[in-house]
Amino acid sequence: MTVRPPEPALHEGDLHGGDLDTARSRFPNAPTPWIDLSTGINPHAYPVPDFDTAAWARLPQASDERALTEAACRRYGVANGGMLVAAPGTQTLIQRVPRLLPSCDVAVLGPTYSEHGKAWRREGHRVREVGDLTEIGEARAVVIVNPNNPTGRMFSVEELRGIAAALEERRGLLVIDEAFADAMDAEASLIPQLPRSSIVLRSFGKMYGLPGVRLGFAVAAEDIAAGLRDDLGPWSVPVPALQVGTAALNDDVWLDEIRETLKEDGSRLDGLLTGFGCEIVGATPLFRLIAHDKAGDVALALGEAGVYVRQFPEHPRWLRFGLPGDEAAWQRLQAALHTWSDDA
Amino acid sequence: MTVRPPEPALHEGDLHGGDLDTARSRFPNAPTPWIDLSTGINPHAYPVPDFDTAAWARLPQASDERALTEAACRRYGVANGGMLVAAPGTQTLIQRVPRLLPSCDVAVLGPTYSEHGKAWRREGHRVREVGDLTEIGEARAVVIVNPNNPTGRMFSVEELRGIAAALEERRGLLVIDEAFADAMDAEASLIPQLPRSSIVLRSFGKMYGLPGVRLGFAVAAEDIAAGLRDDLGPWSVPVPALQVGTAALNDDVWLDEIRETLKEDGSRLDGLLTGFGCEIVGATPLFRLIAHDKAGDVALALGEAGVYVRQFPEHPRWLRFGLPGDEAAWQRLQAALHTWSDDA
Repeated sequence: MTVRPPEPALHEGDLHGGDLDTARSRFPNAPTPWIDLSTGINPHAYPVPDFDTAAWARLPQASDERALTEAACRRYGVANGGMLVAAPGTQTLIQRVPRLLPSCDVAVLGPTYSEHGKAWRREGHRVREVGDLTEIGEARAVVIVNPNNPTGRMFSVEELRGIAAALEERRGLLVIDEAFADAMDAEASLIPQLPRSSIVLRSFGKMYGLPGVRLGFAVAAEDIAAGLRDDLGPWSVPVPALQVGTAALNDDVWLDEIRETLKEDGSRLDGLLTGFGCEIVGATPLFRLIAHDKAGDVALALGEAGVYVRQFPEHPRWLRFGLPGDEAAWQRLQAALHTWSDDA
Repeated sequence: MTVRPPEPALHEGDLHGGDLDTARSRFPNAPTPWIDLSTGINPHAYPVPDFDTAAWARLPQASDERALTEAACRRYGVANGGMLVAAPGTQTLIQRVPRLLPSCDVAVLGPTYSEHGKAWRREGHRVREVGDLTEIGEARAVVIVNPNNPTGRMFSVEELRGIAAALEERRGLLVIDEAFADAMDAEASLIPQLPRSSIVLRSFGKMYGLPGVRLGFAVAAEDIAAGLRDDLGPWSVPVPALQVGTAALNDDVWLDEIRETLKEDGSRLDGLLTGFGCEIVGATPLFRLIAHDKAGDVALALGEAGVYVRQFPEHPRWLRFGLPGDEAAWQRLQAALHTWSDDA
């Protein structure tokens, strides 16, 4: 339990969910397989279709890329393909977006996913983490994860458009990371009413449960999109990602079903966690953030039982729970909570 | 035959091999399937192993990345993993390398792969294409594709170390792109005697015939490697690439066999092309560059027969031929050359 972020910064450091190797080394005697609830990734992965692996023996073709672009534009409500940039993971776009502005003041609505602030700092910007919109001040770039990870906080499209208008006057940029927006109503997205000075990021891997495929998108005005595309260079999305992404983004039946499943999973998780005295302080369809005075003990007990949840060193009362993927995982989570509760 | 690079620059513009979509639109009545000889990619692709696609449902793990690093270090002769950077394609590294130096004079040994010069210019450097080492002058960065694409020109390790020593004095950087070095003797690589001020790029997709997987490597001193890694950000290599790359790079039996096959293929191609009056003016184990006064007509006749070769708008006498992948492809190439020869 001594994991610490490498710098005592405003953000949560470099601690990420999904690092099962770390879980294994911290709890070498835990039963396996590990139940990884440390991420906000859909545990019901899109069924990867059979591949024509022969296609991997050629460079990604313009026609392959067009098929993915069309599927993504339809799925995310993007007006035209020139506004969409596909990349090998949203993280790659997070690394590149700060290059769109010269060195400036940046406000990141926090606490949130740490890689945004880190990427802007790396490119020489002055980054402040701010708690609310009123603290944005004269920042030229504003970064908002919407809904936020891990707090679940959401701003309305109207609020975001208001910020964008203010930023436009100072030739700034509003970055909206909609990594967790997929399971929600389409009206929650800024994309259909995208202001000129905005970039929206969408993550394929989280909703489709396939983060290993590495696929993410940026949506922005065509000239901004072209600049990002130019920075990424040609053939940036591998053929496997083009194939899986196109199939999945075109599959409305799967999406509708999985949204219902996630709702049921979320209710079940709420019931389970509150039953053990956890307070739900944040939520998206893909995770719950809880607060508990003994959160550290809960994480320890779960870890010893092979259940990995996300801790937040700067918020020791918090734990983030992803959704268990099958009945066995639910049972092990419940049993681990019982063990902790009995010991406490 | 009106394809032109978009800018009349020193380099070959944005024309790339492997763009079969363009071939299809230029020769709509060509017989299919197309025989794509427009790249220098091994036509005998490494047999993609059966996947555990369930692994794609998690983020790439440190252990997956370590396995790839170990396989690549062993294969390429890298002293330790801290010196190796894996990326989703060498192109991604070509985009990032120019950020390692502040705006400076750059000499690119040409004619060569156009993306190097383009990437350095994009990052604000002053790029000259130079024909030989004597013209490097006071450049702080020097880029050499070794062996060169498309001319096959090779510099010895001693020559390269001499340049590196000169660059080190001016705190510069020598970039050696060894994309086509895999089929050659290990002694041809700069990696085992890597100077402090150098970066070597290696391309997985070309030798293993799997460019769609997108996997490439940079080898450099640990601090330079760390900077590149930081610019790429976490999880930059997808799980499919980690899986295929690790399996392939560990497979010495396949590599030995394929090197022999490529040698035989190359001799056969030499015989075929010279038999039709083509002069071999450049070669690597993965392609031949020919010169012919009627190169444009040859390319046209081949295109109409569904055989796609690489032209060079700035060198109209040149054509680059990759290796046919099977006997049917050889026969169609030979038949197309006969048709052209009979018409000429």
